[in-house]
Amino acid sequence: MTQTTNQSWGGRFSEPTDAFVAAFTASIGFDQRLYHHDIRGSIAHATMLARVGVLTDDERDAIVDGLTQIEAEIERGEIEWSVALEDIHMNIEARLTDRIGIVGKKLHTGRSRNDQIATDIRLYLRDGIDAVAGELSRLRQGLIELAEREADTIMPGFTHLQSAQPVTFGHHLLAWQEMIARDQERLLDARKRVNIMPLGAAALAGTTYPIDRHVTAELLGFERPAENSLDAVSDRDFAIEFTAFASVLMMHLSRMSEELVLWTSAQFDFIDLPDRFCTGSSIMPQKKNPDVPELVRGKTGRVYGHMMSLLTLMKSQPLAYNKDNQEDKEPLFDTLDTVLGSLRAFGDMIPAVRAKSDNMYAAAKRGFATATDLADYLVRQGVAFRDAHEIVGKAVAFGIEEGRDLSEMTLEELKRFSSHISDDIFDYLTLEGSVAARNHIGGTAPDQVRAAAQRARDALTRLPAHALDQKDGAQ
Amino acid sequence: MTQTTNQSWGGRFSEPTDAFVAAFTASIGFDQRLYHHDIRGSIAHATMLARVGVLTDDERDAIVDGLTQIEAEIERGEIEWSVALEDIHMNIEARLTDRIGIVGKKLHTGRSRNDQIATDIRLYLRDGIDAVAGELSRLRQGLIELAEREADTIMPGFTHLQSAQPVTFGHHLLAWQEMIARDQERLLDARKRVNIMPLGAAALAGTTYPIDRHVTAELLGFERPAENSLDAVSDRDFAIEFTAFASVLMMHLSRMSEELVLWTSAQFDFIDLPDRFCTGSSIMPQKKNPDVPELVRGKTGRVYGHMMSLLTLMKSQPLAYNKDNQEDKEPLFDTLDTVLGSLRAFGDMIPAVRAKSDNMYAAAKRGFATATDLADYLVRQGVAFRDAHEIVGKAVAFGIEEGRDLSEMTLEELKRFSSHISDDIFDYLTLEGSVAARNHIGGTAPDQVRAAAQRARDALTRLPAHALDQKDGAQ
Amino acid sequence: MTQTTNQSWGGRFSEPTDAFVAAFTASIGFDQRLYHHDIRGSIAHATMLARVGVLTDDERDAIVDGLTQIEAEIERGEIEWSVALEDIHMNIEARLTDRIGIVGKKLHTGRSRNDQIATDIRLYLRDGIDAVAGELSRLRQGLIELAEREADTIMPGFTHLQSAQPVTFGHHLLAWQEMIARDQERLLDARKRVNIMPLGAAALAGTTYPIDRHVTAELLGFERPAENSLDAVSDRDFAIEFTAFASVLMMHLSRMSEELVLWTSAQFDFIDLPDRFCTGSSIMPQKKNPDVPELVRGKTGRVYGHMMSLLTLMKSQPLAYNKDNQEDKEPLFDTLDTVLGSLRAFGDMIPAVRAKSDNMYAAAKRGFATATDLADYLVRQGVAFRDAHEIVGKAVAFGIEEGRDLSEMTLEELKRFSSHISDDIFDYLTLEGSVAARNHIGGTAPDQVRAAAQRARDALTRLPAHALDQKDGAQ
Amino acid sequence: MTQTTNQSWGGRFSEPTDAFVAAFTASIGFDQRLYHHDIRGSIAHATMLARVGVLTDDERDAIVDGLTQIEAEIERGEIEWSVALEDIHMNIEARLTDRIGIVGKKLHTGRSRNDQIATDIRLYLRDGIDAVAGELSRLRQGLIELAEREADTIMPGFTHLQSAQPVTFGHHLLAWQEMIARDQERLLDARKRVNIMPLGAAALAGTTYPIDRHVTAELLGFERPAENSLDAVSDRDFAIEFTAFASVLMMHLSRMSEELVLWTSAQFDFIDLPDRFCTGSSIMPQKKNPDVPELVRGKTGRVYGHMMSLLTLMKSQPLAYNKDNQEDKEPLFDTLDTVLGSLRAFGDMIPAVRAKSDNMYAAAKRGFATATDLADYLVRQGVAFRDAHEIVGKAVAFGIEEGRDLSEMTLEELKRFSSHISDDIFDYLTLEGSVAARNHIGGTAPDQVRAAAQRARDALTRLPAHALDQKDGAQ
Repeated sequence: MTQTTNQSWGGRFSEPTDAFVAAFTASIGFDQRLYHHDIRGSIAHATMLARVGVLTDDERDAIVDGLTQIEAEIERGEIEWSVALEDIHMNIEARLTDRIGIVGKKLHTGRSRNDQIATDIRLYLRDGIDAVAGELSRLRQGLIELAEREADTIMPGFTHLQSAQPVTFGHHLLAWQEMIARDQERLLDARKRVNIMPLGAAALAGTTYPIDRHVTAELLGFERPAENSLDAVSDRDFAIEFTAFASVLMMHLSRMSEELVLWTSAQFDFIDLPDRFCTGSSIMPQKKNPDVPELVRGKTGRVYGHMMSLLTLMKSQPLAYNKDNQEDKEPLFDTLDTVLGSLRAFGDMIPAVRAKSDNMYAAAKRGFATATDLADYLVRQGVAFRDAHEIVGKAVAFGIEEGRDLSEMTLEELKRFSSHISDDIFDYLTLEGSVAARNHIGGTAPDQVRAAAQRARDALTRLPAHALDQKDGAQ
Repeated sequence: MTQTTNQSWGGRFSEPTDAFVAAFTASIGFDQRLYHHDIRGSIAHATMLARVGVLTDDERDAIVDGLTQIEAEIERGEIEWSVALEDIHMNIEARLTDRIGIVGKKLHTGRSRNDQIATDIRLYLRDGIDAVAGELSRLRQGLIELAEREADTIMPGFTHLQSAQPVTFGHHLLAWQEMIARDQERLLDARKRVNIMPLGAAALAGTTYPIDRHVTAELLGFERPAENSLDAVSDRDFAIEFTAFASVLMMHLSRMSEELVLWTSAQFDFIDLPDRFCTGSSIMPQKKNPDVPELVRGKTGRVYGHMMSLLTLMKSQPLAYNKDNQEDKEPLFDTLDTVLGSLRAFGDMIPAVRAKSDNMYAAAKRGFATATDLADYLVRQGVAFRDAHEIVGKAVAFGIEEGRDLSEMTLEELKRFSSHISDDIFDYLTLEGSVAARNHIGGTAPDQVRAAAQRARDALTRLPAHALDQKDGAQ
Repeated sequence: MTQTTNQSWGGRFSEPTDAFVAAFTASIGFDQRLYHHDIRGSIAHATMLARVGVLTDDERDAIVDGLTQIEAEIERGEIEWSVALEDIHMNIEARLTDRIGIVGKKLHTGRSRNDQIATDIRLYLRDGIDAVAGELSRLRQGLIELAEREADTIMPGFTHLQSAQPVTFGHHLLAWQEMIARDQERLLDARKRVNIMPLGAAALAGTTYPIDRHVTAELLGFERPAENSLDAVSDRDFAIEFTAFASVLMMHLSRMSEELVLWTSAQFDFIDLPDRFCTGSSIMPQKKNPDVPELVRGKTGRVYGHMMSLLTLMKSQPLAYNKDNQEDKEPLFDTLDTVLGSLRAFGDMIPAVRAKSDNMYAAAKRGFATATDLADYLVRQGVAFRDAHEIVGKAVAFGIEEGRDLSEMTLEELKRFSSHISDDIFDYLTLEGSVAARNHIGGTAPDQVRAAAQRARDALTRLPAHALDQKDGAQ
Repeated sequence: MTQTTNQSWGGRFSEPTDAFVAAFTASIGFDQRLYHHDIRGSIAHATMLARVGVLTDDERDAIVDGLTQIEAEIERGEIEWSVALEDIHMNIEARLTDRIGIVGKKLHTGRSRNDQIATDIRLYLRDGIDAVAGELSRLRQGLIELAEREADTIMPGFTHLQSAQPVTFGHHLLAWQEMIARDQERLLDARKRVNIMPLGAAALAGTTYPIDRHVTAELLGFERPAENSLDAVSDRDFAIEFTAFASVLMMHLSRMSEELVLWTSAQFDFIDLPDRFCTGSSIMPQKKNPDVPELVRGKTGRVYGHMMSLLTLMKSQPLAYNKDNQEDKEPLFDTLDTVLGSLRAFGDMIPAVRAKSDNMYAAAKRGFATATDLADYLVRQGVAFRDAHEIVGKAVAFGIEEGRDLSEMTLEELKRFSSHISDDIFDYLTLEGSVAARNHIGGTAPDQVRAAAQRARDALTRLPAHALDQKDGAQ
């Protein structure tokens, strides 16, 4: 990047900016990625200015044409960004004036960099949100399909990482799907608050030119102009809200990752991850490491940190714009990149997960997972729950000693603990019987899992178009 | 609190819990505040169990009656909480069994503490949210009224804490109102996700009893039962989302506080805060400190911290319930208390703020706040904006040297900087002319402020009933 | 607590504090726990004032005697704290004046609440640090002893939660000991910066009385008076630094907890935790949950949150004291309580951990943990490491297919992968041979573990007295 | 960067890494900045291997020579980094093998990427710490010099942003110096824990080669080898501790920035910042914005966020190395860059700050800043402090009404409030008298400021060489 001294605000200044200060305070290094949205906003602004008579139609055409060519230049990599021009706005404006002369300077009529940058970020983030929403749809789809495939697969359900009760693997996958569905709902709620237009707030107080903000809002697809100019240039809630959404999402992915890592360990051995999602070791030839879930789990911290960064940034700032706000962009951009990358990795990986159903089944048999079923059985025979709990506790203690599950004891052995037990008990102590019995909405019974998967599919079809799978990313 | 050893899960245990461990792991010290919602949930659960035939009507009546009496005992301070009974659920259940005998134990049929606590917190938080929403309405109301009163009051608008352009004080207050309105919108969005019922998920997999979750949901005012039992007992998104809402709200209050503190300083002296919102010094007799805004600004960190605490808590937790989750309550409760207290303080204080409009006006005159207006004037005379900017910069430099504002220069002096200036310039350099000229939606012109205030009033009337002012708090 | 209006700074005030404001801004609810250190500081201050002639000896004696009796009253629970008196300082001073009359008021000569509270917290925290340092010593001791006992016990060492190479359990425990030793070192470094005396800074600028700060510092055991009065009343670095220490400590405990939870799962089954550190389930009779490590892991978030709270609190505060700072205490107190409780739980639990060494050994055999040893063997036979890695990778693939470890293959089978293998290979493929071969400082060989344990023991003996085990806690 | 499939750990793999996964998991994009330290570590490792006989002297020479040439290539920009080679280690090793053939592969004997990366980061951070320590010395120096220049300059001292008591500007600057001195002390404490060598831990358990870790440690300037191999590869405390140091430092800079921004506002107007540290506005010609302090204040959030990111990253990770840890680098690097840039900006700016001493003096006169002095005077006349406080409060109320300071009242007027006042009172009510009277260590009297500045100068001379000003940065 080239570096010479900015003179655009130099009238009252008696010495140039220090070169280090210029580099330290410039944002072109990271805000250049806004070029497309900056140009899009400028074209809408020029169109509106012509509509209200501040520009002639010829001036508008010259500006629109110039900007369109500059966008093409940028995409061909022909623009050299200048630190002395501080930011993406001034870099583009300077290039515009180079190309079309004095009329280029008229583009800045009735706006300021304060409302311009706020508009750029919102446009950029809106596209980013749509890309994220699409990836969320794809991941939900993948989870639902896998859940249907594994609706009858039995595994141990854990609390405290101790075997608790048998569940179906499909049921577990739909728990993940619920998390992601909530994330998507939060994202769509946040999108409403992103899609408000700051443009027209100018520096902080509005402008003396006869602008029509409804026109610009419509041209840019915003729902409405922001209600208050001071708020419009100083509000960064939308960035924080996006990182809050992203933090909860990454938390969910970290939980899924934790389980994927556990399940691929030799100790659990519940699933197989295809080699293409794993890496090996330069020193230990036997290693096949679940790198993708580990890395995504690690990236959780990154996103939490960005949210904390933005909250700290905004704390105690007096209105309206302060230079502090320049620090809003990098955390936001990196959050978006991280979320998109992590979702893409999960969206590819989930459909490729292979359940080792025999291992799951064997593990479910080992952990006394049907102890609650035995207690429930005793309650139905008239034993008070508290007493039933005590009886089963003793049977479990015996089983631990003997190394046998409840279902592996003889009727005689079981009857030692309670005379209420008769030979129909074995129907209840099977894993299949246990899961099938939890047959109500939200329960783990295979029929419930299939019904829940169908409801989840239906919900996907009700999403707005901008939340559907397979659109282009924000970058 | 009394401490003896819990035996309710003791069948398989060969030694009692260590006394320190019992105290360290007990939650009764802080979850006792859930008693009302725990009882409410239990009554609904018993009612449903009777409806589906698991309890007789007599059993249900005994339970409902017993719980009702226990609630009264608690409110009269007659219950001594026991650490050995671990938590609010076991404390109430033990008391119920004391009162009504063995039938009390039947209440726990078809549920577990895992779904019970998740239900309690959601019920509690839903009430808390309604209390917060009411306070937000009250604060919005106060801001709108003050804004209308001060729609014509002129003050300097700041960027970079440097005088930028004149604005009206009413406009500034409506910027605050916009922030709070967004907070309320976010809160109402979050409420939808709180109002989902975990009950029926039991420990993690659902239950073998023939429960009807739609009945319980309706009795408790939940929108619907949670779709997945594993998710239902492990989900704490709603708590995080509430703290995320609260963090942004506190950030807004910190910004308002910062400005109130600045404005009450001798250097700004823009407003007067009544003595009842201030405190003095034990050593410096002249001091009158803006304690309320300072303290609220300080409390921002508290709420940020609680959100970070919850996000860290949930990171990497495998499904379903883990003991870690017991740590969800204190941050949530304290966030709610902090937000309610801070909002109450602001709701009382804002209507009592008195503008020192002469000081505001004088400050607006001092800072060359109409420099942009002079530049805009020159542009309208055909000067290119870049040149106009340069001309005005030089006039300002002259003004700084002479200690005079632009409007205090003679026409002759002004004409030295540009021959395009004639004597109508003084209409544009007045503060009144400057603010009135920003006359578009979102602009600072007094007419726009009045119109915006009216729109804000109208928006308040469209809020749902549970977001209106003046309901009882969550405690 | 009683509530009447404070008049101690009322001369310039024309209306009393609002009752809600008084309660909202009062700190007595949580700073009462500073009573002992507040009184200790006051006694030292009075002693110094008498030494320099500002008080007579009789006045000093009356004050010291009065304060001593008030401390006894507080400890007998006879003091009713008053919200109207705001804080612990004013509550004690009011009680002192009640007891000894007008001379009580002279105690506040030459100081202010600003330097008084800063002194109280530092004294309190210094005691807290010593209690924490003692618990750290106890935990280190417990880890070293267990490590010595398990110096020869072989388990799988993990990377990516995949079996990597065999290690000794003692070696793993010493890794934990290293973490805790670093924490203690950081704590002792932080203690130096806590042990500086703010007293004498008065409100912000020092005092006009002829105080001798070296005398007070010596009486209170401070290393030296703070160098600058403005800094002394506004500095809260020491609180942040303590929470930063605590955050890293809790992170370490969360890692140890994670492993304890994994190891007690049915899938790993590497250790047994005595029942007294576990709890059961009210619904699932077979459950024995590792509640203590789970809860400690959960408390990590709490401490991270408190640190973030304090950092946010201090961000952008202008000098010197602001009311915001009142928010420093609760996060600090709760961090101290959390750390002490968690360390006590770990200090009790670690010596009671029982290794299931057969299970550990069997797991180490299963995961191809000696694959690196085979590669190293081949390198020693002249095979390039890259080629050796490839050869072993193929042998592992064969083993996975056959369900056999490298050491369970025949020589003939092994030779199929490389002709460089001969029958001495089996010495290297045993777990015992593998660990014994890592025989350098820091390596896992049993002899190295014993030597490292001895060095760790020696390091404990070099700690300063205030870091040794078994002192009273801060509360 | 080129992308082909890595085969270095491929023996057990049946399909190549997915191309997106390869890019997603690669670290070469950001760890390339470690090249110098990676090479330095490799040279030391090779030297040690030759010393113990694992390499011949010729092999060592070939490796050292090859690495030295590769470093030169990198610095000439001639290396194209390959994503397929994952990281800086593999990229350099591959290039080495290209250059010197098979012997290049021997370099990896007795080490692993796990201990290699841990060593690289520590070496890199150690250099970074020394650069930061030098900048801290330079900033301290600048503050001390300015404090000495302004030792007699009187300004209002603030609490609650209300004028409290007069202080000297030099005293205020030395408060800043104290903050920075503590930061430097913390940094030097942290450096001790950075300067420990992981190399030799290999993958996690040490190595079977006869390495001598003391030799390598000495060659690399480490204080000692790490005590435990599992800890050595999994410990990231040093990175967290550095970000904790940096967070407190940035908090301090945010406080200084806040004051600089306040002081350059038209309302305070206490100082002048040279134009070269400010920027203007593209729209408002009169603006001169204190961009540097604003931006540094904003960067505080960035650093807080990075610390939170690292703490989250490490929470609950089981030993030893997990892929999550790859996420340690970017937050650490950006923290280092941010801190160095911010310190450089402050180090340049502070000596250029010009006090507007007349404005400061006038402000100190306005705020009843000597009210405490009047109270102290009355106490010396025998009035009880509480009564004196009340009397002065009334005098202040009168002054507010009349618009006059205490020193501007007549003796007669003052006597109306207390008969104990006589005409020597005016000696005490002058600002000069007030500051001179606070004449004890830590007090604001000009003589104390000069003495404190001298002590601060002396302390600088006692710093270790690696903390002195003007060394090269880490990059």
